[in-house]
Amino acid sequence: MTIEIRRLDTNENDFSSELETLLAWESVSDKQVQTIVTDILDDVKTRGDAAVIEYSNRFDHLHVENMDQLELNQEQLEDALNTLPADQRHALLAAADRVRKYHDKQKQDSWQYTEEDGTLLGQKVTPLDRVGIYVPGGKAAYPSSVLMNAIPAHVAGVQEIIMVVPTPGGELNQLVLAAAAVAGVSKVFTVGGAQAIAALAYGTATVPKVDKIVGPGNIFVATAKRQVFGTVGIDMIAGPSEILVVCDGKTDPDWIAMDLFSQAEHDEDAQAILISPDQNFLDQVQASIEKLLPTMARKDIIRASLNARAALIKVKDMNEACEVSNTIAPEHLELSVDDPQALLPQIRHAGAIFMGRHTSEALGDYCAGPNHVLPTSGTARFSSPLGVYDFQKRSSLIMCSPEGASELGKIASVLARGEQLEGHARSAEYRIKKQ
Amino acid sequence: MTIEIRRLDTNENDFSSELETLLAWESVSDKQVQTIVTDILDDVKTRGDAAVIEYSNRFDHLHVENMDQLELNQEQLEDALNTLPADQRHALLAAADRVRKYHDKQKQDSWQYTEEDGTLLGQKVTPLDRVGIYVPGGKAAYPSSVLMNAIPAHVAGVQEIIMVVPTPGGELNQLVLAAAAVAGVSKVFTVGGAQAIAALAYGTATVPKVDKIVGPGNIFVATAKRQVFGTVGIDMIAGPSEILVVCDGKTDPDWIAMDLFSQAEHDEDAQAILISPDQNFLDQVQASIEKLLPTMARKDIIRASLNARAALIKVKDMNEACEVSNTIAPEHLELSVDDPQALLPQIRHAGAIFMGRHTSEALGDYCAGPNHVLPTSGTARFSSPLGVYDFQKRSSLIMCSPEGASELGKIASVLARGEQLEGHARSAEYRIKKQ
Repeated sequence: MTIEIRRLDTNENDFSSELETLLAWESVSDKQVQTIVTDILDDVKTRGDAAVIEYSNRFDHLHVENMDQLELNQEQLEDALNTLPADQRHALLAAADRVRKYHDKQKQDSWQYTEEDGTLLGQKVTPLDRVGIYVPGGKAAYPSSVLMNAIPAHVAGVQEIIMVVPTPGGELNQLVLAAAAVAGVSKVFTVGGAQAIAALAYGTATVPKVDKIVGPGNIFVATAKRQVFGTVGIDMIAGPSEILVVCDGKTDPDWIAMDLFSQAEHDEDAQAILISPDQNFLDQVQASIEKLLPTMARKDIIRASLNARAALIKVKDMNEACEVSNTIAPEHLELSVDDPQALLPQIRHAGAIFMGRHTSEALGDYCAGPNHVLPTSGTARFSSPLGVYDFQKRSSLIMCSPEGASELGKIASVLARGEQLEGHARSAEYRIKKQ
Repeated sequence: MTIEIRRLDTNENDFSSELETLLAWESVSDKQVQTIVTDILDDVKTRGDAAVIEYSNRFDHLHVENMDQLELNQEQLEDALNTLPADQRHALLAAADRVRKYHDKQKQDSWQYTEEDGTLLGQKVTPLDRVGIYVPGGKAAYPSSVLMNAIPAHVAGVQEIIMVVPTPGGELNQLVLAAAAVAGVSKVFTVGGAQAIAALAYGTATVPKVDKIVGPGNIFVATAKRQVFGTVGIDMIAGPSEILVVCDGKTDPDWIAMDLFSQAEHDEDAQAILISPDQNFLDQVQASIEKLLPTMARKDIIRASLNARAALIKVKDMNEACEVSNTIAPEHLELSVDDPQALLPQIRHAGAIFMGRHTSEALGDYCAGPNHVLPTSGTARFSSPLGVYDFQKRSSLIMCSPEGASELGKIASVLARGEQLEGHARSAEYRIKKQ
C-alpha cells in the first residue's frame, strides 16, 4: 500500500493542463437519486408528518408512531451540555464564544441618506424569520458544524432556528445536542435525509416551514436541497474539502504533512496540495508523509485521498506560488511563511487564509472564530464563507419628496418610453408637477 | 373583453387559502428545454467559437463566418451614446449617475482585529475578477437592465465586464449599446441564448471565461444559467414581476391604477395587488382601471395579467395590511400613505419599498438609485436586491501568534478528538507550546 503523490512543476510545458486535470471535480448527478428524492419531497409535501414518520422508520430503522417521538426539547439539549466531560464542555463553550465574537463583526446595519430635495434613499437590513439547519447523524456527526451553522443565524437575529439530525438506529450524539444548546437552536427534530429537507421546506403540522436551509449532508440531502431551492433559500452545495499549503520551505515538514492529513482524512475525495519553490522541502514533506501515515487512525482514507487527489507542486518563487493559488481558489489556504502579510495582497481567491507557520487549518475548523463552512471546488472565485450576511436580507428604501418625484419622473418618463413601457411612463408622469 | 379582478377579504374564512392560490407560481420545468440546453452547453464547451457561430446563425438568423463579426468595440458603444437624441442621452446619464451613487454606499470593506495575545482575525473583501452580463435582445431590450446589472459590478471593482446580447435578424438596439458605454462594460458580444451562457461559463478562444453570470433571459437562458451554476456563480432566476400597493384610501385612484398597470404591462404572468382597509377606495380603483385601460398601448397584456393574477384585497386596518404584505413578501411594495415611516418597522419582507404617495414604483425601475433586479415570488423572505455585494466576495483571515496557536490548539484538539478526527487534532497539537 504505497503512497504515490503526484508531482507537478510550473516549469513543465504541460503544467496548466496537468493542474486542470488535478482540480477537475464533478459531483455525480445520479438520475436514480433524483427520482427517489423527488418522490420523497412530493410525498412529504402532500402527507406531511405521516410521511416523515414512515421514511424515518424505514431509513433510520426506527419504530416511532408519532412526531412527539421525533422531537427533542430544550431540556434534553441542556442536559446533554451539562453532562459532558468537563474538558469537552469547556472547549465547546470557548469555541462558541470565539465564533460568536467574530461573527458579531459581520452583522450589517440598515442605512439611509436624504438628498437636497428631501428624497430619502436607503437599505433596510432584516434577519430571516426562520431557518433550518441540517446536521448529519451517525458517524459523521460534527458538533462544530452545529456551531458554525447556527451561530451566524443566531447573531443575525433569526428568531427560530430549527435543527434536524437523523438518529440511525436511535443513536443520539450528545456532543451534537450540547452544541445545539450552546448555539441557540430553538427546536430539534431527529429526522434526516430528503424527508427532513422536505419537512423544513414545505412545513408539516409539526415541523415549521423555514425560509432557508443550511448545513452539509449526503447526496440525498444535497439533491433535496437543490430541488427545494427557490421555495426556500439554501447555502452552497459543498464539494469535497480541500487544503492548499503555500510554504517557503522553512516550516517543519512534519507540521505540513499533518496539515495535509487533516484534510485528506475527511474522505477519499478530499484534496491536499502543497506548493513550494523548494524542491528539497517537497521531498522532506513527502518523507514526513511516509513516516507519519502509518501512525494515523484514518490512514486508509488518508492514503486513498493522497493517491487520488493530492499534489506537491514546485514553483519558481513565492509570487508564482500565489498565482497558482489564485488559479486553484482553494477552500483553505495556508501561507506557511514568516511574513504572510507580504503575500496577502497577491491572494485574490480563497475561502479562508491561514497565515503564518503556527496557524494550522484545524484551528479554523473549531475555534479560531471565522466560519468553517467555506466555498469549495474553486467557487471561492465568486462566493464567500457562510456568515451572518447569509441570514440577513436587504430591502431598498425609496421615499421621494414631491419635488424629487417630479424631477425623477421626467427622467423615468423618457427612459420608459424608450423601452415602450407606457404604463411605467404615465405612472411617473402623474407625479410631475404642473408648471 | 371585460376586466374581472379577483376580490379578497381577510374577513372571509377562506382568505388564507385564497391568498395562497393567488400567489402560487411554478415556472414550467420543461424536459425538452432541458435537453436542448444541455446539448448546446456541451457543444459550446467542446467546440467553442465554431459552435457559438453556428447557433447564432441558426437562432438569430445571421450569416456570420467568424467571431469578429459577433464582437462590438468600445468605439461602437461610444458612438451609440453620442448619437442618441439629447433627452435620452441626458436621462441615461442622469439615471446612471444616481444608480452609481446609491450603489457606492453598498461597497463593503475588509476589516480585521487583533486579540491580546497577538492573534489577528479578519475578513478580506475582494471583487470578482470577471463577470458576464446577459441582456435580452429584440423587443424586450431594456437599457435600464444594462445599467442595473453592470453598474454594481463596476462599483465593486470588477475589472472585466463582458456583456452578451443577441441581435435577432441583426437588429442592434442603440439605447442598449449606449447604456453599456455608460455602465463601464468592457466587451460586448452579439450572442444570445444558451450558447451565450455556455461561452461565458466555459470560455472560448474569443469569449473570456467569467466567474459569475447575471441578467434576465428567456427560458433557454434561465435553464442554461441553472445548469452552469457551480462552474460559475449566477444571480437569482427571476419569476414574473410583481407589485403590491398598500394604500390607506387617500391616494388618487388613477395614480394607483396606473401603478398597477406598470407591472401588469410587463407580461401576462405579472402580478399586481392592491390592499386597502377602504372598500370604497377599492371600488374607485377598479373604476379607474376600467376607465384607463382602453387608453393603454399594451392594454391586451395588462388585461390578461389583471384577469389572471391581480387582486384587490380588503383588510381590517393598516396593521393587517402590513401582515398580509409580509406573507406575500412582494418584489415591489408601495406604501401609499402620508406617513410611511410609521409602517416601515412592521414590514419585514420586500425587495424594494416605495414610500409615500409620490413614490411610484417606476421611479425605482429607472433612476431613483436602488437596483431594479429584485427577489420575486416571495423570495424576499430570504434574498436581497442585486447589489455591489453580489460582485464582491470574502476570505476569512486567521493569523495566530505562537501563544494564540498554543491556546487555540488545546481547544481544537479536544473538539477534533471528540469528532474522531485525529489528523486535525495532531496538526493543532504540534503548535501547542511545550511546558
